[in-house]
Amino acid sequence: MKRFAYEDLKNLVINIFTHIGCSYDDANTISEVLLAAELRGIPSHGLIRISDYINMYESGKINIKPDIKIIYETPTTITLDADKAFGMIAAKKAMNIIIEKAKKSYTAWASVINSTHYGIAGYYALMAVKEEMIGISATNANPLVAPTWSISRMLGTNPIAVAIPTKSYPPFVADFATTPIARGKLAILEKQGKSIDYGFVQDKYGNPSTNPAILKEGGAILPLGSDYEHGSHKGYCLSAIIDIFSAVLGGANFGPFVPPQVAYIKQQEKEVGKGLGHFFGAMRIDAFRPKNEFLKSMDEWIYTFKNAKPDNNHNEVLIPGEPEFRNELENRQKGIPLIDEVISELKSISSRYNINFIT
Amino acid sequence: MKRFAYEDLKNLVINIFTHIGCSYDDANTISEVLLAAELRGIPSHGLIRISDYINMYESGKINIKPDIKIIYETPTTITLDADKAFGMIAAKKAMNIIIEKAKKSYTAWASVINSTHYGIAGYYALMAVKEEMIGISATNANPLVAPTWSISRMLGTNPIAVAIPTKSYPPFVADFATTPIARGKLAILEKQGKSIDYGFVQDKYGNPSTNPAILKEGGAILPLGSDYEHGSHKGYCLSAIIDIFSAVLGGANFGPFVPPQVAYIKQQEKEVGKGLGHFFGAMRIDAFRPKNEFLKSMDEWIYTFKNAKPDNNHNEVLIPGEPEFRNELENRQKGIPLIDEVISELKSISSRYNINFIT
Repeated sequence: MKRFAYEDLKNLVINIFTHIGCSYDDANTISEVLLAAELRGIPSHGLIRISDYINMYESGKINIKPDIKIIYETPTTITLDADKAFGMIAAKKAMNIIIEKAKKSYTAWASVINSTHYGIAGYYALMAVKEEMIGISATNANPLVAPTWSISRMLGTNPIAVAIPTKSYPPFVADFATTPIARGKLAILEKQGKSIDYGFVQDKYGNPSTNPAILKEGGAILPLGSDYEHGSHKGYCLSAIIDIFSAVLGGANFGPFVPPQVAYIKQQEKEVGKGLGHFFGAMRIDAFRPKNEFLKSMDEWIYTFKNAKPDNNHNEVLIPGEPEFRNELENRQKGIPLIDEVISELKSISSRYNINFIT
Repeated sequence: MKRFAYEDLKNLVINIFTHIGCSYDDANTISEVLLAAELRGIPSHGLIRISDYINMYESGKINIKPDIKIIYETPTTITLDADKAFGMIAAKKAMNIIIEKAKKSYTAWASVINSTHYGIAGYYALMAVKEEMIGISATNANPLVAPTWSISRMLGTNPIAVAIPTKSYPPFVADFATTPIARGKLAILEKQGKSIDYGFVQDKYGNPSTNPAILKEGGAILPLGSDYEHGSHKGYCLSAIIDIFSAVLGGANFGPFVPPQVAYIKQQEKEVGKGLGHFFGAMRIDAFRPKNEFLKSMDEWIYTFKNAKPDNNHNEVLIPGEPEFRNELENRQKGIPLIDEVISELKSISSRYNINFIT
């Protein structure tokens, strides 16, 4: 593990993506989103993904000269065809368009189809907060999750992010996958030869499993709630809503047809729409009450929840987004920590492309 | 248990609420929403609530001659002050207003403040489906749920409903509380002298508990996900989003300040807003793509998920809203089943008010 300055990593990632042919602006967007994940302490959606993204480009799954177009539009909505762009580019564009629309219409919503993996959901929700709006961001993802009572992998880990402005606190940012565990964490446990508690995965027959490698044997991740008794049908509902809003709304692939976002897995044979889908929203806070009243009340909400009593094993109750905000402060100051595996990957890509690695 | 015809119960409930002074239209709305819960097989939100509603009215917590007013408005949003009306009346009004707004602006959103318990969330979401729109409905509720790592009751069971139109299937309706268990179910287990599995409640120190009566001893319900390891912070996030959208957005009481919706618990001493809050949305499906394409794709989504393989213990995988739809078919045909306790309550209210009970 070694720490690197934000600006150094930012430039390195821009150099990598301009090298493969992205425009400077597009490379800058990709770099910004990946480094936002690193800053916020979500390295699973950060630089570790670069080699996969490059492989996806090289296997023809990503278009680096996309013609991203609005294909449907009303005063409060758009549907954007991402033309197989890197998801971050289409997502940022969609969010910028609806922020402008919301300035006029108070609320605006976007469906993005024909897209690919977009990084952390929270980045786009936070774009709205900069304009003193509430931001919403969600995406579907390749199928690994079985609905309650099923053994079929029908849904992705389908994350949603909601970011809400405040007066003096850091913004409220809820950004979470709708499963009890992310695929990345299963992979780490597998590498460490550890087993996992019940309530995260099932085997191919639907039996509870403690094997973190069970996905390779036809198993599936469970929805949030773990089992029916503990409300997994609610997690299934939530994930289904995100799938429908991200895909059925505008015409992307839904559920089991979402294309895999890694190079080595083949595209699905059947398509029911175009690429992968996202959903975004922007709501002006003065759409419902005067801005200052809202911001003051939001501060009061956070103050109240910060003052909830922690249990005996913890010193404080956290506000959604608070741990990520602290990580960002620390990582901006001390540098972004990268594990050795990611450092070597970046070095190897740099050397392949004749790019200077950080000195 | 005995079954009663829908129309007979409908008229009885109208008679009860007109007797206490509600207008015919208001009594009709209350009756419709309570009976929608009974039809859909959610009796916890049906006629069992009537005596509590009456007690709330008699203790001054509900205003039966409300002056429900739009207090803030934009082309795509409203904030409605419910003037302490029965929640169903304000909720239906808000939904009707935003459906009209969405006809012009494609999407519209409502915040309702100064309200009370509104029955089942799904009823209002389904109002939008009748107009071929997507409907969203959410509400906060009196605090029983502790955030992850906390021992304080800060949030309600905060339900959300999303209803989506289809071409030939019954509509998709996800309607769920954001906790692994509802308070009503705990009460039933307590009456039966049963204990409950881990993962539903904690004691006043935050320790896992199997006692369904633990709320009376300072315990709390856990968020969806049950414990931090299994993602309870995601359930906490979801419930917090619903609380903020329902209350901070328009100016209702949030979190621990939400007034209790039963007569025998005193109002909170501190108020941070007005009454309890709801949030509603209506989105035209042709806001994102041509209507017929959307409906066809939605049918395909349902067909696909119906054809997911069930596990060995089940015969089929369910679509959100499917069990409730089947209950409604059965209950419309055979009559609505009421437990003896509810029948005697209704008889006793009828006799007190000199209303003829169903003959």
